[in-house]
This record gives sequence, C-alpha cells and structure tokens, in this order.
Amino acid sequence: MEEDILYHFNLGTKTHDLPQMFGDVKFVCVGGSPNRMRSFAQFIHEQLELPGNIADIRDICEGTDRYSMYKVGPVLSISHGMGVPSISIMLHELIKMLYHARCRDVIIFRIGTSGGVGLAAGTVVITDKAVDSFFRPQFEQVVLGKVIIRSTELDEDVAQELLQYSSELPDIPTVIGNTMCTHDFYEGQGRLDGALCSFSTEEKLEYLRKANEAGVRNIEMESTVFAAMCRVCNLKAAVVCVTLLNRFEGDQISTPHDVLLEFQQRPQRLVAHFIKKRLGLIS
Amino acid sequence: MEEDILYHFNLGTKTHDLPQMFGDVKFVCVGGSPNRMRSFAQFIHEQLELPGNIADIRDICEGTDRYSMYKVGPVLSISHGMGVPSISIMLHELIKMLYHARCRDVIIFRIGTSGGVGLAAGTVVITDKAVDSFFRPQFEQVVLGKVIIRSTELDEDVAQELLQYSSELPDIPTVIGNTMCTHDFYEGQGRLDGALCSFSTEEKLEYLRKANEAGVRNIEMESTVFAAMCRVCNLKAAVVCVTLLNRFEGDQISTPHDVLLEFQQRPQRLVAHFIKKRLGLIS
Repeated sequence: MEEDILYHFNLGTKTHDLPQMFGDVKFVCVGGSPNRMRSFAQFIHEQLELPGNIADIRDICEGTDRYSMYKVGPVLSISHGMGVPSISIMLHELIKMLYHARCRDVIIFRIGTSGGVGLAAGTVVITDKAVDSFFRPQFEQVVLGKVIIRSTELDEDVAQELLQYSSELPDIPTVIGNTMCTHDFYEGQGRLDGALCSFSTEEKLEYLRKANEAGVRNIEMESTVFAAMCRVCNLKAAVVCVTLLNRFEGDQISTPHDVLLEFQQRPQRLVAHFIKKRLGLIS
Repeated sequence: MEEDILYHFNLGTKTHDLPQMFGDVKFVCVGGSPNRMRSFAQFIHEQLELPGNIADIRDICEGTDRYSMYKVGPVLSISHGMGVPSISIMLHELIKMLYHARCRDVIIFRIGTSGGVGLAAGTVVITDKAVDSFFRPQFEQVVLGKVIIRSTELDEDVAQELLQYSSELPDIPTVIGNTMCTHDFYEGQGRLDGALCSFSTEEKLEYLRKANEAGVRNIEMESTVFAAMCRVCNLKAAVVCVTLLNRFEGDQISTPHDVLLEFQQRPQRLVAHFIKKRLGLIS
C-alpha cells in the first residue's frame, strides 16, 4: 500500500512520521475507559519520574473520539471501549502502527475491570488462559463467512513475573486464573438484572459454579480476541483485571465510587511496577 | 429489586428521579460516536426550535465515560460505542431506564456509518433486515453457555415512512436494503488492509458479491443485536446508516474529512425530518 490510513486513530503513514512518533515504544497498556487510560498515563509519568507537567499530556487521537492514546516515554496508554469488536479494531490499527514505526520487543497489557467468580471484590486476576462462554481457550473469528478458530494462550513468563511482583506491593491480593470473555454484560454473564432475563437464580449459580470448576476466576469482555490477535502477531501479552464484585454474591455494582476507584488502580500499580523493573528503575 | 443501578449510565432508581427526567421521551436516537451524538442533539434542538442555548447542552452521563447522553425535548441522543457488545450494554440499561421512567410509544433509531456494498459513497441505507455474516436475519445470543436465536426484523412501517420522507429532502440518495452486521471491521468485513489478512482480493470480491445477491447493501457492526433486543422488548426500531465508501472499490476510508462530515449528517437530517413530521411541526 502506498498509504495506510489508521482510520479509527486518525493517524496515517503519509500524514504522520510514525517511526519518529512511536519508534521507542516498549510497553503498550490498554483498557476500556478513556478517562482511566488518561489517569494511567499520568500515573506512569509520575512513576517513571519523567520531566514535564503531567497536566499537559495530549491525546494523540484527539481528532477522533473512537479511542484515546497517550505516550509517556516508552509507554503507550490506549483506550479500547467495551467488547471484542471494539478492542479488535483498535488492535488491528495498533499492530499496524507498531509495524510502521518499526517497534521491537513490545509487551502489551490489558488492564481492566471484571466480575469475580468466587473471589473477594478487589482481587487482581492475572489471566492464565482466556476462555469463551463455553470455557474453551479459543476465539472464533468469522472471515468471509467461514469460522476460523484461534488459540487464546497468553505469555506464561510475563504472567509469572507479574504474580511475583504482586507480592512486593502492599494491598494487592492477586491470583492467576482463567478469564472468561463474553459478548454481553447481562444475559451473557448470567446477570439477573438486565432488560431481558430468562433464567433463575439457581441456573445462574449453576453456570458460575461450572465456570469456577473450569478454572474461571473472573469475567470480562475483551480477553479472547486480545490474546488471539497478540499471539498470531507475536506480541507478548498479559491480561490483568481487578474484580469489582463477587458474582456469587450479586450482579449489581453497588460498591462506593471511591472504593471502585482504588480497585481500578490495582492493575495499574502492578503493571507500573513491572515496567519499572524491566527498565531497571527498581531492583 | 429495591434499587436498580444503571452502572454504565451512572444513573439509578434511588439516586435519580427517572420518570421526571425521562417520562416525556418519545424518540431515542443512538449512534457510535459521542461527538456525533452531541452534534445530533444540538441539531435537533435547532430543528425543533426549542428555547435555550444549544451550547449549554449537558451530558446526562457525564459521571462516566462509557456513554454520552443528551435530552432535547422529547428526543434522547445516546452514544453506544462500536460493536454488538458495546451497544447491547447500552440497550439493556436504556430499556430499563425507559421502563422505570414509564415511557410509552417510543421509537428508536440507530443513525450510523457503514461500508456500502455496490452503492455510491454517501448513500443512506434504511435497513430492511439486519443479517449476520452468513446473511441470516438472526442474532445469536449466548445465555448461560447455550446459544439462543433471536429474529432481527425491524419495523416495516417506520422504514417505509423514512424512505418516503427521504424524497422530500434534497441530496439524500436513499435505499431500503439488508444490512450485514459483523463483529470485526477488518477480516470480518473482508478488508485486505488489517493487521491480519489470509485471503485474496478475488475471494474478498466474491464474498461481497454473495452478500449483494443476498440483498445486503451495507455493512456495519451493531444492527443485529439492536434489531433483536428492540423486537423482544416491543420497541419500534429503525436503522439508518450512510455509506462512507463502496467496498467493491476499496477498503480504506480516504474521503476528505469535510465530505465525511456531510455524509454523517444525512441520517441525522432524515431522522430529524421524521421526528418533525410525527410531532406535527411540518406537514
């Protein structure tokens, strides 16, 4: 191609010098909410003790409202919206962008929120395998009307390293377990409080018990396609999500706002610690 | 339930007087981009000749960045992000909100953008049937690990009425046709320019030809679940999307920004015309 327009980033190979803008990127952190990814960029700026005013940080995708992107030294922080289709558009354009920018040895983290399966709210889950609604470690991609199956294995070494670092940080209860990725927040996750619900509390709990037996520790909406695409494209990837509630105890997220905010910082703190270790800023 | 927290709207039955806030809503317009739905709210404010300054319009969901919501007289304008999971979360909470607010006889429109299948860029497609990647007019919802099939038929009368009104407006070429809803923008829509691509130009064109033969006139990423959920919940619904390119001619969206902006206003102008007719503001 003569020109590659990364439409949903509002960037392109003719209009932007991608190697100059992104050539030094070594870590990419992605999460659903634009505000949270802005906060993370400010937090990592502080943690890496970089010069400049964190209030001045600029959204590289400000010409579009599809995604937000911030660059802080070797770290990119990008929002991906909610659900598999939304994160997959972002990943296609991110992977092309890293290619055009000639980046090497990049590690990518999804830092998100999730529902816990048998864990106390606030627990951080590092994903072993991302599984679908049938507890299979695979992602089904429809290509030209045919179903293609892709593996959803994540990088084991990065996961173990994250687990080890979690013990060095105070107040971040952390486990490794399977993460179930659904395409719906209500019926798809067995919630009784959606606009539609055709099952009983007992049937819901039975499904969650089966998930738990299959090693599922949390439920979110992006991990399978994230794992599958990163794997095919040879990007080392990890999923680090905090649980906002224990789904055995309820469906609604009624935890006070400030407690939720502190929970959401836990994956950020853990990944920031990992990045500082890798950069040799702490031993 | 004693309390219903509409988590992704940052609204709830205990914290907000939903009947007072939303009881008079008669039309709901939804679209992917928050900025576009803010512009639409300002446009409809102008069109309905309502009092007050359009610059003062306030995002009802400002406490969260998951969705944006604006209310202008009897019209709600809400963003839903990209893809089926993202719009389905919004629809669950919207349908519960309309129920709590005791709204009656609401018509809901998705006004969006799409890729055209054999149509000139800028054509508006009113959806007859929303079909999946296999051209079937159905939506598959996974509930507790079981696949449930739902019909994706939309309201025929509203579609015909929209088509009729399109002829009363200048420069809005409009057709009725089937809309294909995919879960991926690149491989899922047969694009050759994604980070991953395992097929040839000829295979891509063959797939688009088959889609065209099945009555598909445009491709987007939300219509099947939108049609299915509205149907089950007895909400009259229509999908009105403009095409940004003709997919037989390419994959990249390289049309100048100002032309794209004018294209994006076409579904807005058509739906605004419909609303004015229904409110008796024009004859």
